[in-house]
Amino acid sequence: MILTIDRALKLIEKEIAALDFGKEPKELYDPIYYIMAIGGKRMRPLLALLSHNLFSDKTENITKPAAAIEVFHNYTLVHDDIMDNAPLRRGNATVHEKWSANVAILAGDVMQIKSTELMMTVDDKILRRTLELFNSTATEICEGQQYDMDFEKREKVTLEEYIEMIRMKTAVLLGFSLELGGLVAGTSEKNITLLREFGVSMGIGFQLMDDLLDVYGDMSKFGKTVGGDIIANKKTYLLITALQKAKGAEAKKLKELLGSKTIGPLDKVKEVTEIYNKLEIKTFTELKINEYFDLAFKKLNKLDAPLHKKAVLKDFANKLAQREN
Amino acid sequence: MILTIDRALKLIEKEIAALDFGKEPKELYDPIYYIMAIGGKRMRPLLALLSHNLFSDKTENITKPAAAIEVFHNYTLVHDDIMDNAPLRRGNATVHEKWSANVAILAGDVMQIKSTELMMTVDDKILRRTLELFNSTATEICEGQQYDMDFEKREKVTLEEYIEMIRMKTAVLLGFSLELGGLVAGTSEKNITLLREFGVSMGIGFQLMDDLLDVYGDMSKFGKTVGGDIIANKKTYLLITALQKAKGAEAKKLKELLGSKTIGPLDKVKEVTEIYNKLEIKTFTELKINEYFDLAFKKLNKLDAPLHKKAVLKDFANKLAQREN
Repeated sequence: MILTIDRALKLIEKEIAALDFGKEPKELYDPIYYIMAIGGKRMRPLLALLSHNLFSDKTENITKPAAAIEVFHNYTLVHDDIMDNAPLRRGNATVHEKWSANVAILAGDVMQIKSTELMMTVDDKILRRTLELFNSTATEICEGQQYDMDFEKREKVTLEEYIEMIRMKTAVLLGFSLELGGLVAGTSEKNITLLREFGVSMGIGFQLMDDLLDVYGDMSKFGKTVGGDIIANKKTYLLITALQKAKGAEAKKLKELLGSKTIGPLDKVKEVTEIYNKLEIKTFTELKINEYFDLAFKKLNKLDAPLHKKAVLKDFANKLAQREN
Repeated sequence: MILTIDRALKLIEKEIAALDFGKEPKELYDPIYYIMAIGGKRMRPLLALLSHNLFSDKTENITKPAAAIEVFHNYTLVHDDIMDNAPLRRGNATVHEKWSANVAILAGDVMQIKSTELMMTVDDKILRRTLELFNSTATEICEGQQYDMDFEKREKVTLEEYIEMIRMKTAVLLGFSLELGGLVAGTSEKNITLLREFGVSMGIGFQLMDDLLDVYGDMSKFGKTVGGDIIANKKTYLLITALQKAKGAEAKKLKELLGSKTIGPLDKVKEVTEIYNKLEIKTFTELKINEYFDLAFKKLNKLDAPLHKKAVLKDFANKLAQREN
């Protein structure tokens, strides 16, 4: 039976809506229900379900571990939002804004525990392996977040360092989501490796797309302020590439804009974007995004699974590659 | 073979000193080595080792799970210290003071993952049960911390609520430490339950002793500012009891002291302590502490283990009951 993306999303939303984290104390649990309810694309659990469906029809075995990933992902968002001092998440107040930083720290801590509990619904025979992979993925995500914060303070970041940072911070969890689906379904080691590699490549492409949309996205669709990365001097793929490619007057101008304490945010976004346009940064970034999605599709092609089922994952990846939000 | 407290402590310190959390990024891992190195009593891993030794001589099976508890405990301290805005921990700068709140949040997050990884060194046949107990204990600790913060904002807290809060925040982890020792050693269900109950009762007594030492401790031995709880209007066992017992002029005076915005901290400590003295709060608290330690010893007596080995745990509990720091 083919699990469609829509059907998989319904199963995920149902599982998430039924999650029982606890009730008292309210200040601990209310923020958890809140952050889990304000949505998001549910991309990670969806990938786990679609991956699982390549080899098995028993969706009941994967919905809870898949929900575990979503709880874990939301926990990292709750803590990252404190660290980034972010007021909004998915158009809603962040947990630390709505409650307090203390509430957000502790709610996140409980979510990490709950995600492990949900992950432990896997069968005994894959329990140790699943948790080992989950823990090593979680560690890489924390390391990625630390590198992200380190890079803000550093003068120079290379493209390689940047790609490695987003691999850790974002891509490995997509890789693990797919890997988990294969693991729960009991597929071969070769397939499990290919699934992870598919997810990691797609994840890097996905994050580069995020960087691109931050500058070139349609604000009404993207749901974030366009140019936020530029305003914050965030060393994204676009800025690092621009700093490498800019010569002479443009290099000088770009550095002035980055160092200016007086320029207004809208002017800064406009002028930096103009430099990006002159340097064709959009094209360079799109090429890099395509490169990672191509690599992802190669891994998917090699996967030993029914073509008509792989088509669903391919469709999903294509939508990510062409997303506008 | 009897494992003495000294020998157990040496094994624990050796295990902790050898822990490899990771190296890069430095800002993520340096704080973890720092907090783990500044010591503490290592009470929880010690309890796990002594409990394990009641039934088994194979210390190599318990040192890593015991270290897991210490890593977990230190993670909760790192996060709690942010929430409590505490500048010092064991006489040293707290992680958020020495680095930043962001560093402390993320270092704590990684420590939680590492504690699970270390806990997973238990044998396959007890893996699920161990992690289930660890997770439910961890959840209770977070709930206890939230109640603790809630109580600061509340007008009235009953003694029962207070005891339940410290049971969750402090005592269950002592209970789990002992339970873990029994579990790893493969003892009976009855013994495992008794070990947990022993630890929980002892843990409540231990925390009440902490409250008492905060007012009546010798500062040079206690290592914290005496009277810190009084200055912060912390609803400890002492204050809640005093609020219940004070009548007439004393009740009025106590409430004035708690509400005063002008009184200096030293005067406040002095005057509140005088009221405690008049109301014999020290005696009431000591009686309650003895009650919990007596209950703990009853559980220990019921435990089916060699008397000469139980004597080590009894000795340890006696030292806690009579501690001055």
